[in-house]
Amino acid sequence: RRRKKPAPRLVAMSVGGGSLVLHPLSNYSMHEKDPQHEKERSVEARFQRLREEYEQLGMRRSVDAVLLVTNHGHPHILLLQLGTHFFKLPGGQLNPGETERDGLNRLLSQMFGPADDEAATDWPVADLLCQWWRPNFETCQYPYVPAHVTRPKEHKQVFLMRLPERCQFVVPNNYKLVAVPLFELYDNKDSYGPIISGIPQLVSRYNFIHQS
Amino acid sequence: RRRKKPAPRLVAMSVGGGSLVLHPLSNYSMHEKDPQHEKERSVEARFQRLREEYEQLGMRRSVDAVLLVTNHGHPHILLLQLGTHFFKLPGGQLNPGETERDGLNRLLSQMFGPADDEAATDWPVADLLCQWWRPNFETCQYPYVPAHVTRPKEHKQVFLMRLPERCQFVVPNNYKLVAVPLFELYDNKDSYGPIISGIPQLVSRYNFIHQS
Ligand SMILES: [Zn+2]
Ligand SMILES: [Zn+2]
Ligand SMILES: [Zn+2]
Ligand SMILES: [Zn+2]
Repeated sequence: RRRKKPAPRLVAMSVGGGSLVLHPLSNYSMHEKDPQHEKERSVEARFQRLREEYEQLGMRRSVDAVLLVTNHGHPHILLLQLGTHFFKLPGGQLNPGETERDGLNRLLSQMFGPADDEAATDWPVADLLCQWWRPNFETCQYPYVPAHVTRPKEHKQVFLMRLPERCQFVVPNNYKLVAVPLFELYDNKDSYGPIISGIPQLVSRYNFIHQS
Repeated sequence: RRRKKPAPRLVAMSVGGGSLVLHPLSNYSMHEKDPQHEKERSVEARFQRLREEYEQLGMRRSVDAVLLVTNHGHPHILLLQLGTHFFKLPGGQLNPGETERDGLNRLLSQMFGPADDEAATDWPVADLLCQWWRPNFETCQYPYVPAHVTRPKEHKQVFLMRLPERCQFVVPNNYKLVAVPLFELYDNKDSYGPIISGIPQLVSRYNFIHQS
């Protein structure tokens, strides 16, 4: 036998994502609150702020959240729709020194919590799905640090969340919260961008349990 | 506080893929052996066999293996190249009743083991990366069971493997074993197909340790 047995060099892993219970979309009640506008209206202004913050604070750290529900027997992802054509995952940028979990709790509570309640509630994380790096002050992000890039400008982590069996979503009324099935996202980078359109592959490792 | 605390309904998961040690490409010695041709030369004949086997045995179960190495500081995936333009992951179809682990050991040993040694050596699995389903006797596969498909014709599981620090690959000489960097695969479905081109996103959740 010429092939050497591998040394046990890997951190213990469980194979696959395990089971994930999805609750029906109808268990979640949708409500409205006052609009929450992005800090900048133009793409240019957004990259200008990224540049200024990078010079002061270094690489931006961002988190996005994947919230799954079941609807007529298929997994659906909750996306924020802005206008007719723009979709995004809930999430945003972390404050300096803030942990991913604290940031997710803050950002999701701001987005979906009742208007009269500023307190961050607990949004439990199921798993890290993927990571993206932005090498320049530009649109392109990659799921790796590109060769010869030593100082990425942004690092984004996309987390799969656990949703409670029932809850309220109080959504700023400049957004719509929509449940989009995996087959709509898959291979549809033109409509949803590289991150969201890649989610069907990323969540295929989980065993979904569709609750009725 | 109107939002109910979620019930602990999810199987315990560790967040992220954990650490994965990658060894240098130069640690792996490449050798040749006699060609191993696919059972059928034509795509038509392949789907004809899938149809016949489906009628006798039910859904085909397949496994593919993702083998990662490090080369000039970046993760690379080992792909089998056939001719100039066709690339595939090592793997194949499981026998009836065969487990995924036994099938991976058998298929990878057949592909990469020395010609004079028929014994299956151990190829340890690190994780399940993704799953694909083929709804019809056709090329299209999806990372979910499409709506209203009750009897998929094939189910493929793609596993991330652990490689030993050093080993030999004895490759049938109708193939070349090539190390392809993630940036070459990413967003390159035209050259590598949907499964292989999606691997960069899938492995972004692991913390790679590049060994020199
Ligand atoms: Zn390089
Ligand atoms: Zn739907
Ligand atoms: Zn349906
Ligand atoms: Zn290379």
